[in-house]
Amino acid sequence: QFPPKMTDPNLTACSSGPEVRICIFLIRFERKPFEVCGNGWVRSVRPQKENLFLHVNDGSSLQSLQVVASSELNHRLLTFGSAVEISGSLVTSPSRKQEVELQADQIDVVGECNPVDFPFKIKKKHGLEYIRQFPHLRCRTNAFSSLLRIRSEATAAIQQYFKEKGFIQVHTPVLTSNDCEGAGELFQVEPAGQEKNQDEEGHQHFFSVPAYLTVSGQLHLEVMAGAFPGVYTFGPTFRAENSQSRRHLAEFYMVEAEISFTQSLEDLMKVMEDLFRSTTEHLLDQCPEDVALYHKHVITYTEAINILNSSSKKFAFKTDWGCDLQTEHEKYLVKHCGDFPLFVTDYPYALKPFYARDNQDQPLHTAAAVDLLVPGVGEMCGGSLREDRLDLLKTRLAQAGLDEAYGWYLDLRRFGSVPHGGFGMGFERYLQCVLGVDNIKDVIPFPRYSRSCLL
Amino acid sequence: QFPPKMTDPNLTACSSGPEVRICIFLIRFERKPFEVCGNGWVRSVRPQKENLFLHVNDGSSLQSLQVVASSELNHRLLTFGSAVEISGSLVTSPSRKQEVELQADQIDVVGECNPVDFPFKIKKKHGLEYIRQFPHLRCRTNAFSSLLRIRSEATAAIQQYFKEKGFIQVHTPVLTSNDCEGAGELFQVEPAGQEKNQDEEGHQHFFSVPAYLTVSGQLHLEVMAGAFPGVYTFGPTFRAENSQSRRHLAEFYMVEAEISFTQSLEDLMKVMEDLFRSTTEHLLDQCPEDVALYHKHVITYTEAINILNSSSKKFAFKTDWGCDLQTEHEKYLVKHCGDFPLFVTDYPYALKPFYARDNQDQPLHTAAAVDLLVPGVGEMCGGSLREDRLDLLKTRLAQAGLDEAYGWYLDLRRFGSVPHGGFGMGFERYLQCVLGVDNIKDVIPFPRYSRSCLL
Repeated sequence: QFPPKMTDPNLTACSSGPEVRICIFLIRFERKPFEVCGNGWVRSVRPQKENLFLHVNDGSSLQSLQVVASSELNHRLLTFGSAVEISGSLVTSPSRKQEVELQADQIDVVGECNPVDFPFKIKKKHGLEYIRQFPHLRCRTNAFSSLLRIRSEATAAIQQYFKEKGFIQVHTPVLTSNDCEGAGELFQVEPAGQEKNQDEEGHQHFFSVPAYLTVSGQLHLEVMAGAFPGVYTFGPTFRAENSQSRRHLAEFYMVEAEISFTQSLEDLMKVMEDLFRSTTEHLLDQCPEDVALYHKHVITYTEAINILNSSSKKFAFKTDWGCDLQTEHEKYLVKHCGDFPLFVTDYPYALKPFYARDNQDQPLHTAAAVDLLVPGVGEMCGGSLREDRLDLLKTRLAQAGLDEAYGWYLDLRRFGSVPHGGFGMGFERYLQCVLGVDNIKDVIPFPRYSRSCLL
Repeated sequence: QFPPKMTDPNLTACSSGPEVRICIFLIRFERKPFEVCGNGWVRSVRPQKENLFLHVNDGSSLQSLQVVASSELNHRLLTFGSAVEISGSLVTSPSRKQEVELQADQIDVVGECNPVDFPFKIKKKHGLEYIRQFPHLRCRTNAFSSLLRIRSEATAAIQQYFKEKGFIQVHTPVLTSNDCEGAGELFQVEPAGQEKNQDEEGHQHFFSVPAYLTVSGQLHLEVMAGAFPGVYTFGPTFRAENSQSRRHLAEFYMVEAEISFTQSLEDLMKVMEDLFRSTTEHLLDQCPEDVALYHKHVITYTEAINILNSSSKKFAFKTDWGCDLQTEHEKYLVKHCGDFPLFVTDYPYALKPFYARDNQDQPLHTAAAVDLLVPGVGEMCGGSLREDRLDLLKTRLAQAGLDEAYGWYLDLRRFGSVPHGGFGMGFERYLQCVLGVDNIKDVIPFPRYSRSCLL
């Protein structure tokens, strides 16, 4: 909900400092004149014969505050983008365009802004690509400051959801010596200036072993799932993918959860769905018309393959049973099922990493895994029940030559293991889906991707 | 507050899955028998002639649930550490040791635990150093599972504090091309297996430029402080410090905030104090006797130097005006001032990084910076007003040869700059202080430090 609700109504008292917010002036105004000091950035300047009209925005809400002053208070530094401090009276506005306005007694420009040099121009709607060129200034646009408020609110909603359900938030590490899932495309980390020392084996690493940036907190969460009924993590994850697509970042945020004493994919799907629903409800509190989110379908991977194979559409990638679903397939399936969120369950065993639970079915051999596909984005969540049977896990790790490296993981199954499962949700993909934003770089404060690490 | 409050009282209904929590059984029991299924790990087994007594803990609270069963239900796999599912009746306990107990109809061991191999032994209190050897199992101890619940709760409290004050949470990046504060001891990042390509200049970096792990989100927060009245970040930060001390980690969590339209250190100190107080109140909700936190003192750096120089204590490091305060000095000052939290303000200008605001005082030249020192830990928060005067900032950056690299930072002062300030708080240090934990490795889920990146 924007603007955020303030808990303390006394905040409207005339004072300077961080607790003065325009959103409070707009919401809490009680129709009798009230002395205030306000701060913000000038969004428009309209000098008229007797009066000067300003719109001032401080980022606390999309709405700006209308400021009315005698034209004597006009000043050449009072430009679009400049920062001002204003004192005066909050009064009922005579215009129907706004309820409240600030009749200014004094206007101080505390930060100048040369409109020639400033990359954003008054009354001009700049495209997202143009805006993206100025990572240090784009928060000054309506589009990106809204995104930042929404992102902050969504973060709070996710945390609130898990807290209410009794999950423990775990800060899983960014630095790890695992290369989880054997996924390639890892970033490696060493102290700056020591690259030469680490090349040949036997040379000293900072951590004694090679260290990477995490690609998933799952295995660390599974450690904690051995002592708690539910745990989650919400933080940055990394891929050294050399991709310039609209869909990929080198650093992105993931919500991951593990649930103990769970034996069915239904339990997992319930949490995935609840998380999505409650976060989005919280976010769209004031948009009750948003109902598409309340529909969903469930199909198995095998049914998905059948749908794809009966389609007349030509796909770039193969759709034989056993092939991984590509973005084109996922988007087709979502469309085919009515453009609603779609769960796909029970993927081929061979496609899934060692920790996915074997369904031990015949002749098609599948694992108890599930993806949540959503309109416009494709895969948003992926999860599975985890293989909790020591012998099966041991065999699979041995086949992959991983049994030594993952001795500690086998230990988890040895000492009071419980049936459990979990999932991960890409936070940027979630925001893209809910907001209909096309390029992932526009839903993260400072995007990192190959050949770009600005600021 | 532990255990977490559950919002839905229906959770007590007999069901399996993640929503069953022992803490709910203990809190919501209404003194009439109630059919439930419970899950957890066995903390004690006491077989008696007719009855079997178990204590079962599921991590939802420190308290375990007493389970009583007919001795026929005993089983050789029912050992300390094993995972069990139990169904039966929740009833009023005849013993005065607990209010509630579970009369079991059925007990299933879902995860065995060989007590010979399991590193933790029944009824034995293991030292933290012993426990630390088992990063994948230490969450099974009371000490560490409590820490994880507290850490999770403190995280929520910090986020709630900032949300209520109308701050926007910003996910500042982990990967950065800045080496903020020119601090050495950076980690550098490149895709794994490509170390050789990056050594000589001119070779291709993944991000085209060298990329590092962040040592602080401050500069990125200052970007956002140019569009919002208050912003904060809470996430991991990194130092490639080759230290094996009890006080240092290579990866640790920091809370950092920036506040716009602020001209006084008092505003900053208010937020630092409020954050500490409200987080700790939330955390210690049920410990009203904890009052020491409500005292505090404020002294200037110059006063601090005078106190140190009048002391009869011999310090290892110099205490001349202009020297940085060392941990030994900070601890002495806190003790000297009554063992309460202590603000030290107005440090020598030359000691502080380029962004600290010049007090322009004579003859002692100081900057508007402040540290919060706390008992047992020393420095917990550090902050400053930021230099918002373009000419002063330009001169200082030029003197340091940084004006080109920080052109974007100068831009922030050019386009509607506002007086602002901010601070950072070490989250682990906060937990150490509040909990009285000596070793920083014991307040983080998976500690990383030089020569150690386990799991």
